[in-house]
Amino acid sequence: MDDFIFLLTNEQAKYKQIYQQIKTLIEQGNLKTNDSLPSIRRLADTLHVSRNTTLTAYEQLIAEGYIRGEGRKGYFVNEFEKVFLQEEQRPSDPNKNQIIGDIIIDFRVGAVDQQHFPLKLWRQLANQVLQMKKCYGYGEPFGEALLKEQLVHYLLQARGVRVDSEDIIIGSSTQQLLMYLGFLLKEEFSSVILEDPGYNGAREAFKLHGFQIESLPVFENGAQLKHLAHLHSRLLYVTPSHHFPYGVSMSIQQRQTLIQWAKNVNGYILEDDYDSEFRYTQQPFPALASIDKSRVIYIGTFSKSFLPATRLSYMVLPKALISPYKERFADFEHNASSLHQLTMAKFMEQGEWTRHIKRMRITYKHKITVLVQELQQQFGEKITILGAQSGLYILVRVHTQLSEQQLIERAEQYGVKVYPTSPYFFQYQVDEPIIRLGFSKLVLDEIVLGVQLLKKAWIRE
Amino acid sequence: MDDFIFLLTNEQAKYKQIYQQIKTLIEQGNLKTNDSLPSIRRLADTLHVSRNTTLTAYEQLIAEGYIRGEGRKGYFVNEFEKVFLQEEQRPSDPNKNQIIGDIIIDFRVGAVDQQHFPLKLWRQLANQVLQMKKCYGYGEPFGEALLKEQLVHYLLQARGVRVDSEDIIIGSSTQQLLMYLGFLLKEEFSSVILEDPGYNGAREAFKLHGFQIESLPVFENGAQLKHLAHLHSRLLYVTPSHHFPYGVSMSIQQRQTLIQWAKNVNGYILEDDYDSEFRYTQQPFPALASIDKSRVIYIGTFSKSFLPATRLSYMVLPKALISPYKERFADFEHNASSLHQLTMAKFMEQGEWTRHIKRMRITYKHKITVLVQELQQQFGEKITILGAQSGLYILVRVHTQLSEQQLIERAEQYGVKVYPTSPYFFQYQVDEPIIRLGFSKLVLDEIVLGVQLLKKAWIRE
Repeated sequence: MDDFIFLLTNEQAKYKQIYQQIKTLIEQGNLKTNDSLPSIRRLADTLHVSRNTTLTAYEQLIAEGYIRGEGRKGYFVNEFEKVFLQEEQRPSDPNKNQIIGDIIIDFRVGAVDQQHFPLKLWRQLANQVLQMKKCYGYGEPFGEALLKEQLVHYLLQARGVRVDSEDIIIGSSTQQLLMYLGFLLKEEFSSVILEDPGYNGAREAFKLHGFQIESLPVFENGAQLKHLAHLHSRLLYVTPSHHFPYGVSMSIQQRQTLIQWAKNVNGYILEDDYDSEFRYTQQPFPALASIDKSRVIYIGTFSKSFLPATRLSYMVLPKALISPYKERFADFEHNASSLHQLTMAKFMEQGEWTRHIKRMRITYKHKITVLVQELQQQFGEKITILGAQSGLYILVRVHTQLSEQQLIERAEQYGVKVYPTSPYFFQYQVDEPIIRLGFSKLVLDEIVLGVQLLKKAWIRE
Repeated sequence: MDDFIFLLTNEQAKYKQIYQQIKTLIEQGNLKTNDSLPSIRRLADTLHVSRNTTLTAYEQLIAEGYIRGEGRKGYFVNEFEKVFLQEEQRPSDPNKNQIIGDIIIDFRVGAVDQQHFPLKLWRQLANQVLQMKKCYGYGEPFGEALLKEQLVHYLLQARGVRVDSEDIIIGSSTQQLLMYLGFLLKEEFSSVILEDPGYNGAREAFKLHGFQIESLPVFENGAQLKHLAHLHSRLLYVTPSHHFPYGVSMSIQQRQTLIQWAKNVNGYILEDDYDSEFRYTQQPFPALASIDKSRVIYIGTFSKSFLPATRLSYMVLPKALISPYKERFADFEHNASSLHQLTMAKFMEQGEWTRHIKRMRITYKHKITVLVQELQQQFGEKITILGAQSGLYILVRVHTQLSEQQLIERAEQYGVKVYPTSPYFFQYQVDEPIIRLGFSKLVLDEIVLGVQLLKKAWIRE
């Protein structure tokens, strides 16, 4: 890297400039996989900055997965697949495709990036697993111990939660786990507080169980926790790390307020931590369960961060609930493929899971950055973008007289499929339409083209 | 095959002798994979029997999977893996292993034969599936259309049930499907009739939903359907093809009685057809749903016939229930891995599923035959064997003063793990202990050794 010249100005923190320039060198392919970087000390000396500055820059690059430290050997560039390259299938000229119903860009939420999926390795591990004798039985009733062990490490390291592996229950989806757990919870609780707007899937599960539902209002700046004082339930379902759908994260103060509330009312908080892996501006905040897990039912999934098609989710129950749960479901078979569980356990054990998350965080960060930039360029003041710090979708509040439905239909006329947020609003409504754009499975060109088409669809001059 | 001499006597039907002798030639390796067989006409001429006789023999061999017809090309020997060979891992001398707690033979129910699993092909198809774009999304909400299409063919051909693919719901287990469906059923029904003895897993699912439970008594010769007149529920859960755990099959008359009952009371029958593939004495009986599917909720699984670890089950709902079900669960994700669903669809599409079933039927038939013979030889009149016509386990009623628990403990002292049936008896009890022996994952030597050890354990001279 000694051949590259760093230009540092006084307009921005120096560590940021160093970070930014190394990142660019990697992204543009000037620094290649496994190239070594100068030591912290040497780079500091060369650039006449403090070692703390170069260290901070390197730490950021490591956190985001661009480089890795290998102890005394020094720092090296990680494998980096250039998502910016034009080699991906390019959609055809937008002007040729303005036929109703012919969707050329689909901002669907829920599919993951296929291009960066570790196909070869996953196959290899899945094939190894099929040789294991235990694959020919039903599997362990509450999930495979090998996967639980890996989750114990992951939850501590990535989410700050210290759990015992016997407190983990593996299931096939968040909803399936909620449906089963609901049978237990409704013996003690007759009502539940849900975020409004909030995840309709959880709402439906609680409704099926006959829970009375109270609403906790959430605004664009976050949940209105003061409102809890007016509610009567002792059970609360929340998405603290990445509110669904607004995308805000709860501060540590809000998290502590919630835990205190749960203690006061002697209740439980169901923490749905569905995509905390993908936070782009800072490190993910620690989970609620890291503060006090005796009051928190923690729910995680591999659907956002890995592959929804495998149907792998899990929950960590407080000590007071785990034995009753296991007793109640003693005669039940579990619901998640043991083959996938064991493959995922191997994948995590080899450190591939952490690498995959880092790789995807970079990929998705590129995508969300391009999406936001293009929206700002095309729409300027005519929209407000919400939730661009994390997750696999953003929200666009459109300053318009058009309804949500009209925006969706007009987009469709231009070959773009976009999604409503109104299904997630219940008691509390909004006055301007908010559109949801998922970007995870689109390539950058598609994102740019999609936004350009949206402009044509929504702003008629 | 012309080199082999057939000896036909008058003591048994000629087709049976021909069938038996060809079977033996194949099993002993004298006829090898893809060897061609003489035509029906030529063999009839050679043996001086009617063509009908040779045809019947060939048909039986085809049904059981030993040979195949290839149209005009004639008849050929199928691949046959010799389960009788001694090459499998042989358990050590029984006399060396009489230490408490050191289980050497486990008659566990629930694991499938690993040796005959089509590992290579399954891997190959699973790898193909991972290339499909649809694998990177959530999958179709009520199951993959490709798998449903295959199930439509299978259910018609093997179970006599004509269904529409949109009436099929794919799930991760029978219990998961019952748990979800329960929410719908309990709006119309407050109680359910369950077989006694019967499947405790279903009982627990209905109990969790708060259904009142009525018992339909089942004796060793079958369900006491007359008793239905004394019961009040309009919902009935049964295992007609292979009663759990007794192993009896309902006759066509009993099946018609049930359908008539459901019509009269305007109710539904839940038909759990969990292992109908494995019937050894005749062809499987057609499903209840083949008589009148408007009154039957048909439930099937791949856990017995393929691999329980994949967690793949399905149900076919009557027209009156399918729309309400889909509406009720519109906001729910499905629970079975799409990867496994798509792999299974390919496996079925290529005819491998049918071949697998035939192959496994032969394998399991060998195992059950050896188990029954050895039990009869060791125990003679001291036991009664139940349910040896089908399924992956048998029951042994032991004529003894010992309790079920004592039998299990004594077996354990000799290194053999056997299983109780008392968890499946509720209102109606038995006076002699009935022990359950699963054989699917054991090799023949293990079965023989296991029975020999059981004799030492149970009959002390």
